[in-house]
Amino acid sequence: MYQVDLNSDLGESFGRYTIGMDEKIIPLISSANIACGYHASDPVVMLESIARTKEAGIKIGAHPGLPDLMGFGRRNMAISPEEAKAYTLYQISALGGMCQANGMRLQHVKPHGALYNMAAKDYALSLAICEAIHDYDPEIIVMGLSGSEMIRAAKDCGLKAASEVFADRGYEEDGTLVNRRKEGAMITDEDEAIARVIRMVKEGVVTAVTGKDIPIQADSVCVHGDGEKALLFVEKIRKVLTENDVQICPLADIIG
Amino acid sequence: MYQVDLNSDLGESFGRYTIGMDEKIIPLISSANIACGYHASDPVVMLESIARTKEAGIKIGAHPGLPDLMGFGRRNMAISPEEAKAYTLYQISALGGMCQANGMRLQHVKPHGALYNMAAKDYALSLAICEAIHDYDPEIIVMGLSGSEMIRAAKDCGLKAASEVFADRGYEEDGTLVNRRKEGAMITDEDEAIARVIRMVKEGVVTAVTGKDIPIQADSVCVHGDGEKALLFVEKIRKVLTENDVQICPLADIIG
Amino acid sequence: MYQVDLNSDLGESFGRYTIGMDEKIIPLISSANIACGYHASDPVVMLESIARTKEAGIKIGAHPGLPDLMGFGRRNMAISPEEAKAYTLYQISALGGMCQANGMRLQHVKPHGALYNMAAKDYALSLAICEAIHDYDPEIIVMGLSGSEMIRAAKDCGLKAASEVFADRGYEEDGTLVNRRKEGAMITDEDEAIARVIRMVKEGVVTAVTGKDIPIQADSVCVHGDGEKALLFVEKIRKVLTENDVQICPLADIIG
Amino acid sequence: MYQVDLNSDLGESFGRYTIGMDEKIIPLISSANIACGYHASDPVVMLESIARTKEAGIKIGAHPGLPDLMGFGRRNMAISPEEAKAYTLYQISALGGMCQANGMRLQHVKPHGALYNMAAKDYALSLAICEAIHDYDPEIIVMGLSGSEMIRAAKDCGLKAASEVFADRGYEEDGTLVNRRKEGAMITDEDEAIARVIRMVKEGVVTAVTGKDIPIQADSVCVHGDGEKALLFVEKIRKVLTENDVQICPLADIIG
Repeated sequence: MYQVDLNSDLGESFGRYTIGMDEKIIPLISSANIACGYHASDPVVMLESIARTKEAGIKIGAHPGLPDLMGFGRRNMAISPEEAKAYTLYQISALGGMCQANGMRLQHVKPHGALYNMAAKDYALSLAICEAIHDYDPEIIVMGLSGSEMIRAAKDCGLKAASEVFADRGYEEDGTLVNRRKEGAMITDEDEAIARVIRMVKEGVVTAVTGKDIPIQADSVCVHGDGEKALLFVEKIRKVLTENDVQICPLADIIG
Repeated sequence: MYQVDLNSDLGESFGRYTIGMDEKIIPLISSANIACGYHASDPVVMLESIARTKEAGIKIGAHPGLPDLMGFGRRNMAISPEEAKAYTLYQISALGGMCQANGMRLQHVKPHGALYNMAAKDYALSLAICEAIHDYDPEIIVMGLSGSEMIRAAKDCGLKAASEVFADRGYEEDGTLVNRRKEGAMITDEDEAIARVIRMVKEGVVTAVTGKDIPIQADSVCVHGDGEKALLFVEKIRKVLTENDVQICPLADIIG
Repeated sequence: MYQVDLNSDLGESFGRYTIGMDEKIIPLISSANIACGYHASDPVVMLESIARTKEAGIKIGAHPGLPDLMGFGRRNMAISPEEAKAYTLYQISALGGMCQANGMRLQHVKPHGALYNMAAKDYALSLAICEAIHDYDPEIIVMGLSGSEMIRAAKDCGLKAASEVFADRGYEEDGTLVNRRKEGAMITDEDEAIARVIRMVKEGVVTAVTGKDIPIQADSVCVHGDGEKALLFVEKIRKVLTENDVQICPLADIIG
Repeated sequence: MYQVDLNSDLGESFGRYTIGMDEKIIPLISSANIACGYHASDPVVMLESIARTKEAGIKIGAHPGLPDLMGFGRRNMAISPEEAKAYTLYQISALGGMCQANGMRLQHVKPHGALYNMAAKDYALSLAICEAIHDYDPEIIVMGLSGSEMIRAAKDCGLKAASEVFADRGYEEDGTLVNRRKEGAMITDEDEAIARVIRMVKEGVVTAVTGKDIPIQADSVCVHGDGEKALLFVEKIRKVLTENDVQICPLADIIG
């Protein structure tokens, strides 16, 4: 029996602004990445998100981001490792304490957007983020791009690392994602995307954009709840994974 | 032997902006109220503040404020109890987790500025703040204006409450502070101010602006580190308190 | 021939967050109140909003608010008149300059949310806001609650004042709105609401919640574009107004 | 007779936070770059800064920055040209309108910190900034790093461009500043620094870090008011410039 986690970003609303269809995606995933008030969310939204995920029985991860609400944390910012460590610790502490106050705990931490992408390629930045996580609670699982510097830094810190893969993205031969501006960046055929995920989970292999098969670790698949099409895809990938003997379960059950 | 805590606001710098003479006030106090990033401070400043107070061996309290950096949390805002609870929980969790990551823990929580003043008169607001504290950690001491709704709400929540007094402020007969616009609001003579504190601590009595003696509970005295004059006053009150058999010690040693 | 303006709040999206159905409400109104980046909006959204209103040929007003994005400018904040003046001048300058850069100019200024409500009852606050407007451009029309302190302050400053009425709200005998918590606060019957507006425009009279007819000035009616129901109401009020010889036109055509 | 402008950043305080010794630097400069509320400042500070510069009779420039108050606008952010244009237009409009309300007008625009540095090397970003300036008021002078992409973009937009030089920085042979991490980045000898400025102004030449003389345009020299040492240097450079037949005057008098 094979296992994989389905994770989705959650709790990204802010004040009177609503983003995402959280109620609809929650029943379809095993782990939720909850925003912590920097790139999205506010304390009222965070408490609502914790209550919803608790009720649904899924696991909570912190989704710390850059201090850029206007850019939704998607614009690279040249923060120092010291700042990255402090910002991460602040955000995971805030969400972690709110979880604790509600009888929950953090299963994992997955950096958001530009912080995730920058860290994937920058060992010093990844290390700073992982140090913050380790200082806060060494039992927390770090979720990062499969094969990235984040995974390497997490292991170097003695943290459990979960490798995330993307169903709809092409991979280079070195395991990095194909740049969105290049051909082959997106896997637009849904059946092909799902077949690729199944192979990643069961065989640990994916076909790179060059045609060559490369090894890849797939502990969690990133899915989205920001539209009807996205939700239908999640239902489909759940169904096909299950039919192919891949059980969907939270990270904590996969990463020893 | 009598005991009293000296508390001061700390860690109110932000980014490249510096406020306060933290290094100079730390050796003179027993408890520090550290800002949590809403009305002042940022994660880098918070970590520095924790490191400094840890090194000095004094106790840390969280100093949550209104989300109003431009107004330094000093302007009343009509937030709902639900928002007050969420904002407090977010801020004390953020600082609390940072303390935990550095081998420290929160001794107390003291709301800042307008939040402190509004809560002193508003039981529902105080209750919301105290519920956040209780949900996070029921061992934390709540610091509020002596005789205020905050003290009442803290006790109703089953929390330990510390009553704060002000050396330089006049009191009405009902125990509230004399409005700053009215005569008698400020005690400008330093010796008189210190003598009043000693009497509050030893006799539990203060002379109201009307001339009548009223009962008052004095567990902690608020002092300031924002100028040379303020620092000299703290040195003086320390000296005179000690000479008068009043020991200065952290709240945790006073509030069982 | 009678005339009235229909105004609606616009351009309240922020970053990746979308609020309102701006494209659908624009063809139905004569004046738009565009948010200026304090309680809502950002510079990219502001430019888009200016482009849309320009293309539709409707007039632009600035919609300055409190510096409270998390609360959407709906929570009272105890800002000083000096701060109110500076915040208003900053926001109307920002939008005004963007208009100027696009060949447009500000027709009016209508404060948003809590700032609107506080100013309606507070002459000093209204005066500060009006001074900012007058300093920036004395030709701009001030839009405020009919019969409020804002209208009085605008006239005292030598500014043109436009009186706004609400179709769906009850009025007290003194011309103020019935508090939302009291009976009679909302006019839920759409036909009654429209009939009241027509009477306000043509006769300058509205029936207060007590049953007594009171005088009221109606230069502009506030409408909303935040849902299908709201949009249908705007279509209906347009139709019925026109059928009753009330022409819908921008404030600038009504207020000499 | 030779001429040069001395410019300094001003009005960088925020709320209760104070930065810079504005009263002391103002009498020593001919042009002030006033922050606009993104990387520093708030509307109250902006009005105070305008009042001070107006009283002193010096010229005002807008100093737009990145939306990063926590980082003081000093951290590179990957904003798009569209965002750069909108952010610049917003900020210069806000300050420009405040100037207009006080009988002043913008002489120039100088981007701040990371925005200045990024634009110096990025033509598309510079062009977006210059388009915003041109759309707002084509008479405004653009101040940028001498020889940079900003100067090129300004000229391409039909704007007047002022070339800024630094007394205390070394130059590469291509006219760019020596990276701060490399040897020769800083000119630490004050007399040498001043002699270099005089030569830049009078001869249009500076000795690069390699020893080779290169051409350079020097319309304005950047000075600082953030400490006693900085202020003394400004007094000295004023004195020596004057003794060497270089008149200090605002940009508007130098750039036709």
